[in-house]
Amino acid sequence: MNKYQQIAYEIEQYIHEHNLEQGTKLDSLDTLTKRYNVSRSTISKALDTLEKRGAIFQQRGSGIFVRRQRREGYVSLLVNRGFSANFKAGDTHYDVLNVEQTIANEEVAHNLHIEIGTPVYLVERLVYQGEKKLCKEISYFPVELVPYLNKEIAEQSIFNYLETAYKMNISFSDVYLVVNQLTDAEADALDLPPLSPGLYMEQVVYLATGTPFDYSKVVYHYKHAKFFVQSVNH
Amino acid sequence: MNKYQQIAYEIEQYIHEHNLEQGTKLDSLDTLTKRYNVSRSTISKALDTLEKRGAIFQQRGSGIFVRRQRREGYVSLLVNRGFSANFKAGDTHYDVLNVEQTIANEEVAHNLHIEIGTPVYLVERLVYQGEKKLCKEISYFPVELVPYLNKEIAEQSIFNYLETAYKMNISFSDVYLVVNQLTDAEADALDLPPLSPGLYMEQVVYLATGTPFDYSKVVYHYKHAKFFVQSVNH
Repeated sequence: MNKYQQIAYEIEQYIHEHNLEQGTKLDSLDTLTKRYNVSRSTISKALDTLEKRGAIFQQRGSGIFVRRQRREGYVSLLVNRGFSANFKAGDTHYDVLNVEQTIANEEVAHNLHIEIGTPVYLVERLVYQGEKKLCKEISYFPVELVPYLNKEIAEQSIFNYLETAYKMNISFSDVYLVVNQLTDAEADALDLPPLSPGLYMEQVVYLATGTPFDYSKVVYHYKHAKFFVQSVNH
Repeated sequence: MNKYQQIAYEIEQYIHEHNLEQGTKLDSLDTLTKRYNVSRSTISKALDTLEKRGAIFQQRGSGIFVRRQRREGYVSLLVNRGFSANFKAGDTHYDVLNVEQTIANEEVAHNLHIEIGTPVYLVERLVYQGEKKLCKEISYFPVELVPYLNKEIAEQSIFNYLETAYKMNISFSDVYLVVNQLTDAEADALDLPPLSPGLYMEQVVYLATGTPFDYSKVVYHYKHAKFFVQSVNH
């Protein structure tokens, strides 16, 4: 973790621990610079990070303010740290249905920017939040970037594994959402009646280099999936 | 528009007009600083803006790269400029069902941070994308911030009107998404069979001061609503 990330983390913890309300004014850039004994640009970078994450907003000339998610139980679409990071610790578990090496078809190749026929890992999981079935997920990882996966690894957060074992720098993602009626197989997997609504998410996750390393297709149980996005306009 | 916003706009136009692919390297910070003849911090701010909007990614030590939405027909959840800005110019039109002054109930008051009973405008519209019904929307605006609205105004982009007529500085928004089966009235309004899936969005939009001025509840036609989010991890 870089210095600015560490400071961003500490400021976010401070907001969280003191349960600061939306609109609460935080210390000025100058005060923070002195407190953390770092350069203005480091503090500035930490604050920009927090703004991107929707934790604060900066108003030129008048200060830095707390921005808070105001609803319980909604999951951020901007924090692409996988399910484990978005839900309460220990609450998420995975039923791994399949882990195998296969080759990229046209769709997978297109999304991972690789040639059709390139070796990829396929991981198929049911994701539970507590006792509830949250979603069914199919993920593809190029073997060139992710040389080894197995069932045991897939029973935990794969992202944590990739960051720890391979020092991968997971950086940003593109998320696509559509709504449709579930297929019979999907309804069955999620314990829902046929033709129930489903939220379909496709996600491409990139390394800091801009290389995509994960393409996932997820179908969510509509009763257990609530999302939020905090947007910045300019 | 500030200088850095103008430069951000020009860089984004350049990417768009030259149809630059994801991963294309852009000119360096130094080169851009010279070309636009402004300070490094202005260029830096322009680039941060573009990164927040998902148009570029910056990789320390190695450069600035194009980041592109790769799918046609998906609407960004991060660009909260209203429907008119998200779809092709002229393609969006509004069937205004109701514009009236009323008072905030508990839900509206909670989301707009005002007292129950405070005067608000209620605007109810069907939104069309070309010939297709895109969604049904109910919006609330505090009269204290938005002193006047009528049917004619609501037949266009209300955001454009507020920025032009009242010089309002629309800044950021919180967006909440859930999926459910449509009620009979909603299915009827969207020309869908009973119990069809619906995507429900609630949005609170804030001024740069952090004051919420718009609380909207939108139900989307599931066949015409496709969304994407470009997230930044750190």
